[in-house]
Amino acid sequence: MRVQHNVWYVCALSEQIDRQLRRKVIVDEPVLLYRTEAGQVIALRDRCPHRFAPLSRGKLLNDVVQCGYHGLQFNTDGSCVHNPHGNVIAPNNRVRSFPVIERHGLVWLWPGDPEKASPDVIPDLSYMTAPNLKTVHRYLEANYRHDILVDNLLDLTHTDYLHLGSFASGACERSDIKVTETNNEVMTVLSQFNAPAPPHMLNSSIDRVDLQYRIRWHPGQVMTFEMATAPVGGDLATAPFYRFAHIATPESDNKTHYFISFTRDFDLDNLELDRQIADFQVAAIEREDGSMLEAVQAEMRNGDLHEMRPVMLPTDAGALRVRRIIKQLVETEEAGRRRVGNILAEA
Amino acid sequence: MRVQHNVWYVCALSEQIDRQLRRKVIVDEPVLLYRTEAGQVIALRDRCPHRFAPLSRGKLLNDVVQCGYHGLQFNTDGSCVHNPHGNVIAPNNRVRSFPVIERHGLVWLWPGDPEKASPDVIPDLSYMTAPNLKTVHRYLEANYRHDILVDNLLDLTHTDYLHLGSFASGACERSDIKVTETNNEVMTVLSQFNAPAPPHMLNSSIDRVDLQYRIRWHPGQVMTFEMATAPVGGDLATAPFYRFAHIATPESDNKTHYFISFTRDFDLDNLELDRQIADFQVAAIEREDGSMLEAVQAEMRNGDLHEMRPVMLPTDAGALRVRRIIKQLVETEEAGRRRVGNILAEA
Amino acid sequence: MRVQHNVWYVCALSEQIDRQLRRKVIVDEPVLLYRTEAGQVIALRDRCPHRFAPLSRGKLLNDVVQCGYHGLQFNTDGSCVHNPHGNVIAPNNRVRSFPVIERHGLVWLWPGDPEKASPDVIPDLSYMTAPNLKTVHRYLEANYRHDILVDNLLDLTHTDYLHLGSFASGACERSDIKVTETNNEVMTVLSQFNAPAPPHMLNSSIDRVDLQYRIRWHPGQVMTFEMATAPVGGDLATAPFYRFAHIATPESDNKTHYFISFTRDFDLDNLELDRQIADFQVAAIEREDGSMLEAVQAEMRNGDLHEMRPVMLPTDAGALRVRRIIKQLVETEEAGRRRVGNILAEA
Ligand code: FES
Ligand code: FES
Ligand code: FES
Repeated sequence: MRVQHNVWYVCALSEQIDRQLRRKVIVDEPVLLYRTEAGQVIALRDRCPHRFAPLSRGKLLNDVVQCGYHGLQFNTDGSCVHNPHGNVIAPNNRVRSFPVIERHGLVWLWPGDPEKASPDVIPDLSYMTAPNLKTVHRYLEANYRHDILVDNLLDLTHTDYLHLGSFASGACERSDIKVTETNNEVMTVLSQFNAPAPPHMLNSSIDRVDLQYRIRWHPGQVMTFEMATAPVGGDLATAPFYRFAHIATPESDNKTHYFISFTRDFDLDNLELDRQIADFQVAAIEREDGSMLEAVQAEMRNGDLHEMRPVMLPTDAGALRVRRIIKQLVETEEAGRRRVGNILAEA
Repeated sequence: MRVQHNVWYVCALSEQIDRQLRRKVIVDEPVLLYRTEAGQVIALRDRCPHRFAPLSRGKLLNDVVQCGYHGLQFNTDGSCVHNPHGNVIAPNNRVRSFPVIERHGLVWLWPGDPEKASPDVIPDLSYMTAPNLKTVHRYLEANYRHDILVDNLLDLTHTDYLHLGSFASGACERSDIKVTETNNEVMTVLSQFNAPAPPHMLNSSIDRVDLQYRIRWHPGQVMTFEMATAPVGGDLATAPFYRFAHIATPESDNKTHYFISFTRDFDLDNLELDRQIADFQVAAIEREDGSMLEAVQAEMRNGDLHEMRPVMLPTDAGALRVRRIIKQLVETEEAGRRRVGNILAEA
Repeated sequence: MRVQHNVWYVCALSEQIDRQLRRKVIVDEPVLLYRTEAGQVIALRDRCPHRFAPLSRGKLLNDVVQCGYHGLQFNTDGSCVHNPHGNVIAPNNRVRSFPVIERHGLVWLWPGDPEKASPDVIPDLSYMTAPNLKTVHRYLEANYRHDILVDNLLDLTHTDYLHLGSFASGACERSDIKVTETNNEVMTVLSQFNAPAPPHMLNSSIDRVDLQYRIRWHPGQVMTFEMATAPVGGDLATAPFYRFAHIATPESDNKTHYFISFTRDFDLDNLELDRQIADFQVAAIEREDGSMLEAVQAEMRNGDLHEMRPVMLPTDAGALRVRRIIKQLVETEEAGRRRVGNILAEA
């Protein structure tokens, strides 16, 4: 997979990781995830170096993982600490350990060079755990490539067509899109004027509105959204807004770990509301985006978007900016790896 | 797929195409089929040029197709006629349109160079809609390559073995095969003398017959059959005969669109008889040919017949003649495309 | 498949072959197996040379196989003896026949050069049919490559981990492994001292034992086992033992024909016991080894073990010795084929 490796990817929700051994494939790499007795999340390569049994089929002995095939034991740093068959431990008898950090209710994993893994570059999603807000998370296994999902999310004009009747009630009279870029982050502001009120507002007396989506893309395919609604002609900048986030972690060439969160500032303790909001949104996403994106995956057959020479629309500006940034980041990484290779070869 | 492209292939039965958007893959190309309000059949490439959504997942607005993803609208000739996001339309914003003709109750599509698409070269199947005859059509999705089916149909000696008990009652005493070729059409006449009467004749007092199959192959993998039956020693040339047709349109390397029709000259208005004849034949074809041809597909694993060095029998004469014609037609096409490529490169 | 071809592989249990035409893929080659009227097992390539129909879909006429597609008839030596369409038989109109021998209740097939097929090199498994012993056979279709299974069987230290609770009750205090090699046969002796008594002994008053596995590997992936149990400190060499055998015939890159037999020296006529022993063992093998080995197959994705640079443990000594022998045998075979090729090219 030609993707960024020196970046934090969300590999799980905090609530998904416990004392069970769990396997997740992240950027084509099998990863074993578990929590120590003290509660720390550990990420090791999920493949025993002896005969390649997935360690996730083994057993946890306190914080040590025992392989389920012939019983080698590995510590939280991936080093083999016990060989029950003579207890000789060769220097290469270890599994790779991945830098991992738990933050904002999410587990972040760094699949690249551990030396470069600075916690400072994790996007700030602190609103997710702010005391006056309530965030609900969901996880989907998506059967399409991550960039097909990112294209989808960065161009929300699809809402009026793909989500007609669920998230949207029809096309607006006029729209406007602005894309800006700062430090490898892309911000897209899509304003829609005089649009039919979305279905969830139909109970109110309002039937047309102005809408604004403010979308921020961060490396690691983390996207946050603010959706503001105002009466037609109102001030969108100061209008009340909802927050949600979509995170598209690459699994393999046709699979994506899809994390979605919904944040609200009212009725925080209403667990029934937690469920209702998430259920409604996830159902529409799976039914409408899911089936369309699987069809796009089938058409693209793992081809590269640009090599397939698509028609570009003005509304693609955000997605194209993101592709350009990713391309540069990946090329920089690859040049770095070649440089290290040359130095090692000369030494 | 190394097949003819400058040829008419049957892509659907007329009765299959209506105001729904339908997708059919023809020689590896996804095709959208629908009928205009005036009743004309339209064939466009089933892939939006923007982000490759299948247009068949969109919507028909009068005769215009609206993409279901971001709402681009395409006319019956494939040109984009509306972009709801600013309405700028780039020159490459169009989908390919295929020449398509409705004739003899069938929809014919030309996947090659549109300039060469002359309706005159559609094989004459006018008997299918003749007033004194009744033709019933069926469509099968076949899970094997089209040439495996063509080989099957051009060598009907298989009937005595594969269809023993359904279409045949046993081997004949003596048989005779004649193959002729005119203008890229191949005619095979298989005569079987003193054969046990086929199962459908067992109610009569006749127990042995002479039989003649007259098979015509046309480019586009269209095969028509006349099956004549006479008392032993009778004149097969003037004996009464049934007509049927089999058409094997290449879908992909292991799939074929299989159209079968049955024509009769009696009891024309008997709808129950329509159903009975077609049901009986299709059931035997699926059960007997279908499972055998899927097994042959598995053995051939998409290999080329000649490269696999098969033993040739005299009864293969028709099928070999067809393979030779196809090979020449494909090579002529490819040489033509190379010539055009050279001219463009020199210009 | 890069495996030995000049070797006897078990392709079936004797009891599996009768007057039915049966298909088995052996080292990627489709094989038709049946018994003549006189009871001899015949093995032909399961692919008609005419249009590649599997002959196993045909019919047996006395000892002759009639192809189910167009009726060619083949003799037990693979030669075509009847062409119903004119009865001209071309010299290449024959199918390959494989040397095949029935011995010890098993059917052995030689997929390589028939001239080299000496019955003398079939491993001596005569105990299987000895009058004072009773052997029960089972057959499993395994969804992993044969060498993953051979690795598994030659290193029985996995029993204490993978089969905890079924075949083993826990790890021993001390163990010892000895590997010897004679004439391309590898003998591994694994002794385990002061081990918890295995589950099947828990009804007795003994709770700890010494154990010895004596494993013999023969080319053709035939492995025989003796499992001796003695009181702690007893003489394992003279202790009573069970016998069993595992045979791993390569089918394709991710499939293996897995034959297992259990031999006992008591209660020989107890058919209910036959069933109980085999059922218990096969259930544990499928549940515990089967799911682990499929996971290893998925991790290895058909890669070569050594190229994947595994960590080696002392307990791998037997399996490594076997891999070295196989490698030499395969290289010798390939050099022989190249030599023959050169001689033919010069002639
Ligand atoms: S595969 Fe893990 S210890 Fe052998
Ligand atoms: S994919 Fe068709 S309009 Fe975007
Ligand atoms: S395929 Fe066997 S006779 Fe034709």
